[in-house]
Amino acid sequence: MGKRNPREWLCFERTVRFGQTDAAGVVHFLELFRWCHENWEQSLEKYGISLQDIFPSTQIKTSRLDIALPVVHCEANYFQPLYVGDIIDTELSPEKINEFSFIIKSEFKKDGEQIGLTNIKHVSINPITREKCSLSKQINLWLDDSVLDF
Amino acid sequence: MGKRNPREWLCFERTVRFGQTDAAGVVHFLELFRWCHENWEQSLEKYGISLQDIFPSTQIKTSRLDIALPVVHCEANYFQPLYVGDIIDTELSPEKINEFSFIIKSEFKKDGEQIGLTNIKHVSINPITREKCSLSKQINLWLDDSVLDF
Amino acid sequence: MGKRNPREWLCFERTVRFGQTDAAGVVHFLELFRWCHENWEQSLEKYGISLQDIFPSTQIKTSRLDIALPVVHCEANYFQPLYVGDIIDTELSPEKINEFSFIIKSEFKKDGEQIGLTNIKHVSINPITREKCSLSKQINLWLDDSVLDF
Amino acid sequence: MGKRNPREWLCFERTVRFGQTDAAGVVHFLELFRWCHENWEQSLEKYGISLQDIFPSTQIKTSRLDIALPVVHCEANYFQPLYVGDIIDTELSPEKINEFSFIIKSEFKKDGEQIGLTNIKHVSINPITREKCSLSKQINLWLDDSVLDF
Repeated sequence: MGKRNPREWLCFERTVRFGQTDAAGVVHFLELFRWCHENWEQSLEKYGISLQDIFPSTQIKTSRLDIALPVVHCEANYFQPLYVGDIIDTELSPEKINEFSFIIKSEFKKDGEQIGLTNIKHVSINPITREKCSLSKQINLWLDDSVLDF
Repeated sequence: MGKRNPREWLCFERTVRFGQTDAAGVVHFLELFRWCHENWEQSLEKYGISLQDIFPSTQIKTSRLDIALPVVHCEANYFQPLYVGDIIDTELSPEKINEFSFIIKSEFKKDGEQIGLTNIKHVSINPITREKCSLSKQINLWLDDSVLDF
Repeated sequence: MGKRNPREWLCFERTVRFGQTDAAGVVHFLELFRWCHENWEQSLEKYGISLQDIFPSTQIKTSRLDIALPVVHCEANYFQPLYVGDIIDTELSPEKINEFSFIIKSEFKKDGEQIGLTNIKHVSINPITREKCSLSKQINLWLDDSVLDF
Repeated sequence: MGKRNPREWLCFERTVRFGQTDAAGVVHFLELFRWCHENWEQSLEKYGISLQDIFPSTQIKTSRLDIALPVVHCEANYFQPLYVGDIIDTELSPEKINEFSFIIKSEFKKDGEQIGLTNIKHVSINPITREKCSLSKQINLWLDDSVLDF
């Protein structure tokens, strides 16, 4: 069977919603980070990982997770304003840093023009002790298969 | 040409995202209203209305809108908790109240079970004087065509 | 010792922040609910209740709570727009409904003029079984002592 | 008359609210940026600047602003988790970069321990042309007077 193309689970389109704007009439700066995290979740799903295996929940049928993935660093650059109704293309580029952590880089484009960049770094920890631990097998597979060959 | 089925622009599916949960492990109550408004925007788009014709923006090419549609009342009932990764089906039922206002009722279901209901009432006003004014032709068309025949 | 005046823990002032506005240049409708819940938390604190005794957390030192207080209904009426920098006075009026539930009514004023009203209804449940249970002693004390005599 | 101490308008205390947490039971990473921006607004107010002179609004009595201050870069480092009810001390350190831009650094502490750091860079632009322009007199005064002498 042929290998899947990572673009299937790394490229997303999104429409700017009214509630994401502020009184300057443009998208509020926080929203780019919200989109990044939501795109990451969507990427895991499209790749084939169940969100309940990665993110904590209080659902009874869910066994308590033994790994958490908090954000330890994030940054964003904003090049152009975004307006309600704008259609935004995003491409995620995940990069494994070491056995404990990875970065998700996102590039945002509108009509082919770069409008913003974000980086979010996650570290794998034990949610009780909050000590670093190895990334789960699922996250490692997603990271390995997400390398884009140009 | 046959009439389009309103379900095309009134029925939506959505996946619960991690950032929408709170420390109780379930979706925070505010999010249902966020979804309603976003579904409404998506409904207008799918029906064929440009969001820039309805929602204010500071984009230069956009002429200043002469109608605003503020929310004057909203309410929600919550029947079941929602968890990260849950897939939610929503059906919007817009109802024209009079020439100035309309209500959008939304029903949220998970695996066929009703988990919440919301109502949002909008009034049509002049954004400068904030006096009531007639609903725009576009909103009236969307309201007229959105009546579901069971 | 004299009885404390409930106004001490039921009346709050708040300044509208830029991130709470949308591209219509006014406060986004969701924010009123956010304020209500935050005012409620502030009210419990001022009354003398520790938030960790009421709201779930994953802090190690915290024992798992055996009561949760989800929102089962909420509604809001909006009378006037609010702008960045506006100073808003809020008065909470909690009302016990029965041994399982209570409503918090909030009235929002700007320069003495009513600009909005909200109701939030909470039900007391066991967070594991999600069955109704009696309100905690602390919440009952806060409700009893929060009756305003005019 | 003696010079005011910048700590008056650069140091703030804040309590973590339930709606700021996520299903991991800790404060969601976005919230630190929300706090930064809100602290900046509070700082301007305490210094003596009216928010309506800095942030856009659609209030009729307000003349249209001829300067906007969009965020062009931001970043955050997270060292410790935060829980509902935690009391957070923040100190802002504004730094002028050049005649067009400035950075606001924020340090967050809990019980004296550093739990996070953020940087937000703003650029002064004409909101119509979106060309860079000089910082306003008010912002320059606030920046000049906000230098902390240790």
